[in-house]
Amino acid sequence: MKKPTWVVEKERAKRSAANETVWLFGLHAVRDALMNPARQKLRLLVTKNAADKLAEAIEASGMAPEIEDARKFSAPLAAESVHQGAALEVKPLDWGKFEDVCATGAGAPLVVMLDRVTDPHNVGAILRSAEVFGARAVIATRQHAVPETGALAKTASGALERQPYLRVTNLADAMETLKRMGFVLLGLDGDAEATLQQGIVAAGTRPIALVMGAEGPGLREKTRETCDQLVRIPFGGAFGSLNVSNAAAVSLYAATTAR
Amino acid sequence: MKKPTWVVEKERAKRSAANETVWLFGLHAVRDALMNPARQKLRLLVTKNAADKLAEAIEASGMAPEIEDARKFSAPLAAESVHQGAALEVKPLDWGKFEDVCATGAGAPLVVMLDRVTDPHNVGAILRSAEVFGARAVIATRQHAVPETGALAKTASGALERQPYLRVTNLADAMETLKRMGFVLLGLDGDAEATLQQGIVAAGTRPIALVMGAEGPGLREKTRETCDQLVRIPFGGAFGSLNVSNAAAVSLYAATTAR
Repeated sequence: MKKPTWVVEKERAKRSAANETVWLFGLHAVRDALMNPARQKLRLLVTKNAADKLAEAIEASGMAPEIEDARKFSAPLAAESVHQGAALEVKPLDWGKFEDVCATGAGAPLVVMLDRVTDPHNVGAILRSAEVFGARAVIATRQHAVPETGALAKTASGALERQPYLRVTNLADAMETLKRMGFVLLGLDGDAEATLQQGIVAAGTRPIALVMGAEGPGLREKTRETCDQLVRIPFGGAFGSLNVSNAAAVSLYAATTAR
Repeated sequence: MKKPTWVVEKERAKRSAANETVWLFGLHAVRDALMNPARQKLRLLVTKNAADKLAEAIEASGMAPEIEDARKFSAPLAAESVHQGAALEVKPLDWGKFEDVCATGAGAPLVVMLDRVTDPHNVGAILRSAEVFGARAVIATRQHAVPETGALAKTASGALERQPYLRVTNLADAMETLKRMGFVLLGLDGDAEATLQQGIVAAGTRPIALVMGAEGPGLREKTRETCDQLVRIPFGGAFGSLNVSNAAAVSLYAATTAR
């Protein structure tokens, strides 16, 4: 019997996801990935110079580095990638089911949800802040979000190896799941009446999900409706708007200190 | 009588500062500069397409644009500059003396001081946050800091036109001046005993200067000693450190809401 098309497609997507690999680059990102036992590592390309600098991490990883000529570094990276003579092919990290990570992960009962934030520098900085403030996870969608790439790993400055970054098919569904788990969903919105502080205080001791949209478009309609409350960061100035990673840092700080 | 060497050199430095110009680029930065009456504008190079998009701002500025061919855009920009067909040669903004700006500027009695923060993306984001939270000024040193450049203007996303960004010869001297003006100087330092919140509450109603160092080296010894108090942003997580622009946003938020 022939398999229905949707089954064939689902299987193909699974196979392609299973084959997906990422090239991490730069000394910091490569070192942190080499030191991460949860990271599946495939190939390590390094210059002699980088191999010396990474000697300890390479030793710990048990990998056999392929030594490259600095002038013809052969790793398949974008032209502008500042690789510093080190590139590591890896599998994306598998953090498991997002419900499990949010329910039982380390750190404060606090997560960040990103609605179509597509700039890798911002997402990288958000992962760093999430790690610093002990958030359990940063959750984005599979589409219209930043995939786990070398550029993201570089701006995350090591946080990608330690901070769960999970991607879900549908953000609103994931939000509903978190609600059922007891999370209070606070959506950041410059036009909200309540302040961030008020929303956090009202949440009391319940876990909090901070929901952030991209600069400009902000939260999508459906995302906004699914939040428990919309809150704004109170501004003293007459002009301007915060960069999304700065808004995330402020919200994480407020959620960990204001209650 | 021949002028002494130091007079000649001082005059030369003055002339060179007077001749200093900056090429701003990108639609957003060029539009905001065109709309800023305080900005001295010299030449405007635009493609036909960009001229249409900027029509209103060009009209308001009274400038005569030089229309350029998109394929041979002749503005002297770095190769990787995403100019979007618009470049504007300007003089750096003159905000006047830093004591005057800090004493009488608009906004909360709050300033940010940067000790050798050299990444234009971070300084651009800090200018945005300073504007948003209504800080009077962002103060950096003349050396080892980010000059007013097109790249800074672009990441500042318009804030460079409105947010005073002042550069002083000696940071410790400027800190002493602010102290005499009644400012409390809070230095951000991950190893400090007091929290940011405690420092801000202790400052009461006095004006605050938030002093931030670069990631990695942090505050220099002399800067650290000149602060009234060192404070840390309390972290929940076990690893990681905040990006300096995120630390600045958190500190500005705390200083404007915690008291």
